[in-house]
Amino acid sequence: MVSNNTKEIDDLIKVISKLPGLGPKSAKRIVLKLINNREELIKPLTNTLAQVYKNVIRCQICGNLKSINANCLCSSKKYDQICVVENIADMWVIENTGIYKGHYHILGGTLPPYEIKNSNNGLLIESLVNRVKKNSVKEVILATSATVEGQTTAHYIQDSLKNTKVKISKLAQGLPVGGEIEFLDDGTLFSAFKNRGPVVSD
Amino acid sequence: MVSNNTKEIDDLIKVISKLPGLGPKSAKRIVLKLINNREELIKPLTNTLAQVYKNVIRCQICGNLKSINANCLCSSKKYDQICVVENIADMWVIENTGIYKGHYHILGGTLPPYEIKNSNNGLLIESLVNRVKKNSVKEVILATSATVEGQTTAHYIQDSLKNTKVKISKLAQGLPVGGEIEFLDDGTLFSAFKNRGPVVSD
Repeated sequence: MVSNNTKEIDDLIKVISKLPGLGPKSAKRIVLKLINNREELIKPLTNTLAQVYKNVIRCQICGNLKSINANCLCSSKKYDQICVVENIADMWVIENTGIYKGHYHILGGTLPPYEIKNSNNGLLIESLVNRVKKNSVKEVILATSATVEGQTTAHYIQDSLKNTKVKISKLAQGLPVGGEIEFLDDGTLFSAFKNRGPVVSD
Repeated sequence: MVSNNTKEIDDLIKVISKLPGLGPKSAKRIVLKLINNREELIKPLTNTLAQVYKNVIRCQICGNLKSINANCLCSSKKYDQICVVENIADMWVIENTGIYKGHYHILGGTLPPYEIKNSNNGLLIESLVNRVKKNSVKEVILATSATVEGQTTAHYIQDSLKNTKVKISKLAQGLPVGGEIEFLDDGTLFSAFKNRGPVVSD
């Protein structure tokens, strides 16, 4: 069979197909768009990728990504609240709702369920405690996932913060919006019953 | 609102969201994957993009993409068949089926319906005629779309090739596989009737 693509194009298709959500077909579509828009797409994409590769690092204090040449947001000013999340994707989802506009602390994952005692877990928990102390933070909002790992991690953080006297809150658990009782799992129903609140008439 | 992303990340998300099939959400997912795989993804992606930007051009003879440093496939050897398509995406789709393994000629679009006479249409039709003559090609397969523009273009090419005595064929028109008569358009039914063939018993 005669291959009708140049090596450069085949290489590019191969790399792009490795990105999440993309297969060979969508990769090809993207490559075509790129080729037809060299100046408007290939050039800026190459440049921004190079910038990110060179300049973006993870902040060792708050876990967020920061520019190597700039101070991280977490070191800039006083702030009252810190929202603790597992990873950057979680932060982006919360940011996107617009419901919380404060600072974040990105743990970098969750504690493995049976190694809680091992303080060398790679998560930025000690640095969270330091941030709370240093900035006289008033509230820590634990926004870890409602999974065993997420909740274990939240519990561990709660424990680590007990000497700081900061107010600690965590996201409510209950019925998701649009959730039909019939199809909900036992755990969710259990939480929804346990956390039930008084009905307020309008 | 405190923006929690560095400029580099925001820029990269913005460029990636411009690619076909991707929105801000999938762009973010891709950026996360990229950041977590700097050496395995960002580096090769940057390099291959730069290679394509620098080295890949459109062959002025056959219309396919070629490496600036290498001869195009179309100039390499003798060949018997040429499959004429509108664009590279069409070539990729046909290639993918494996049904045709020969050479291609990529027109670069279709003729605008009312400007057929204008020979300066930017399509590589003259160069197709030259290829056919130069390589003593035996068959030209017209694989333009079954649209008015595609068929008009096919017709025009047929006309341009009449002095070469090459055999010209075009893709069959009829019911698509899985097509239910009830939901087919008049044009397709018309073609299917017109091109009906004898039933061969097994």
